[in-house]
Amino acid sequence: MNSKKKFAVILAGSGVYDGSEIHEATLSLYAISKNGGDYQLFAPNTDQYHVINHLTGEEMHEKRNVLVESARIARGNIKDLKEFSAKEFDAILFPGGFGVAKNLCTFAMQGPNCKVNADVENALKAMHAAHKPIGALCIAPALIAKILGEVEVTIGQDNDTAEAITKMGAVHVATKHGEIVFDKQNKIVSTPCYMLDSTIAQIGEGAENVVKTIMAL
Amino acid sequence: MNSKKKFAVILAGSGVYDGSEIHEATLSLYAISKNGGDYQLFAPNTDQYHVINHLTGEEMHEKRNVLVESARIARGNIKDLKEFSAKEFDAILFPGGFGVAKNLCTFAMQGPNCKVNADVENALKAMHAAHKPIGALCIAPALIAKILGEVEVTIGQDNDTAEAITKMGAVHVATKHGEIVFDKQNKIVSTPCYMLDSTIAQIGEGAENVVKTIMAL
Repeated sequence: MNSKKKFAVILAGSGVYDGSEIHEATLSLYAISKNGGDYQLFAPNTDQYHVINHLTGEEMHEKRNVLVESARIARGNIKDLKEFSAKEFDAILFPGGFGVAKNLCTFAMQGPNCKVNADVENALKAMHAAHKPIGALCIAPALIAKILGEVEVTIGQDNDTAEAITKMGAVHVATKHGEIVFDKQNKIVSTPCYMLDSTIAQIGEGAENVVKTIMAL
Repeated sequence: MNSKKKFAVILAGSGVYDGSEIHEATLSLYAISKNGGDYQLFAPNTDQYHVINHLTGEEMHEKRNVLVESARIARGNIKDLKEFSAKEFDAILFPGGFGVAKNLCTFAMQGPNCKVNADVENALKAMHAAHKPIGALCIAPALIAKILGEVEVTIGQDNDTAEAITKMGAVHVATKHGEIVFDKQNKIVSTPCYMLDSTIAQIGEGAENVVKTIMAL
């Protein structure tokens, strides 16, 4: 039987174009709760790369903080990622959204030459060093590839992103809606989510497949 | 068998303290999609009552627009509530969050004497006049009670809110996690969600029970 697993879920803001994708984040938490796990949310305490008007797609001339905006998804129950300690968690999970590629790292702007937020890098490396499982949705596998290098992940079918992931030393495996890639050696489970043109039901399926695979470890 | 039902889902911003509760909104869309329905999101094009820092609970001295922020939950696919037409939809659904009681109406500030946004009132009255089903989560039943008066709804167990609902002419029925109240005459289905101290799995259960009840009509 699965023991009660505690997930650290790392957010990158609140909204697909400048933060965490809200459906992916929510449905990850839902999958964890429904399958008998616990979670604690974290986000880096840093300014967003920018703020996008999600109605028009245009940039808004204001500043927002990643931790403060992530707290919207968390209903206030979220911690600064600096407080993360690998020994307190059984798994770490990254929902997707452009915030992962703009706020947690600079992949959206710089591709394979991107820089990674130091708190994000520390948290991920600590979990990997402790041989604990890592979940990554949507574009988040690109972040994992940048930090860990030789891993096997999926972002679905997008050739440009897959090529960039390969340039960072990882292996990309193409997938369809709800499918996962499970790198057993590195305990990394990834799924494409909205990197494909998906319904929200398919997002729920992908998130649940990632969570259940991690739960079973 | 259920025919494919089209829901209009009305948002009030993005975040529990000044907008729509994100889990309730997302899990409503998920329940609709998973059970074979379609949805279109709407929000009024108006300033939020205020902006709350969801990390600290304090007010932030800035302005945000309800439609623009709701677009974060909608991934950009949302319309101004002024464009809503009852004949295009089989059902209307209101997720909760303080935004319902601050932006869609002023219940949070004025209780039973609250004012209602004109676009919200028009949309709800048009659906009710057409004998189409209405879903309401969390605090949203208070909005329904204000507009429609003699209806039967639930917001869970909170006595003050239940009393205010009674003062607006409605009947309140106490409920527990995931339970619904179904006012058959008025085709109104409500559930308490985060008006109770709930897990996100329980939110999903409540949203699905509302959606399935409407689907079966």
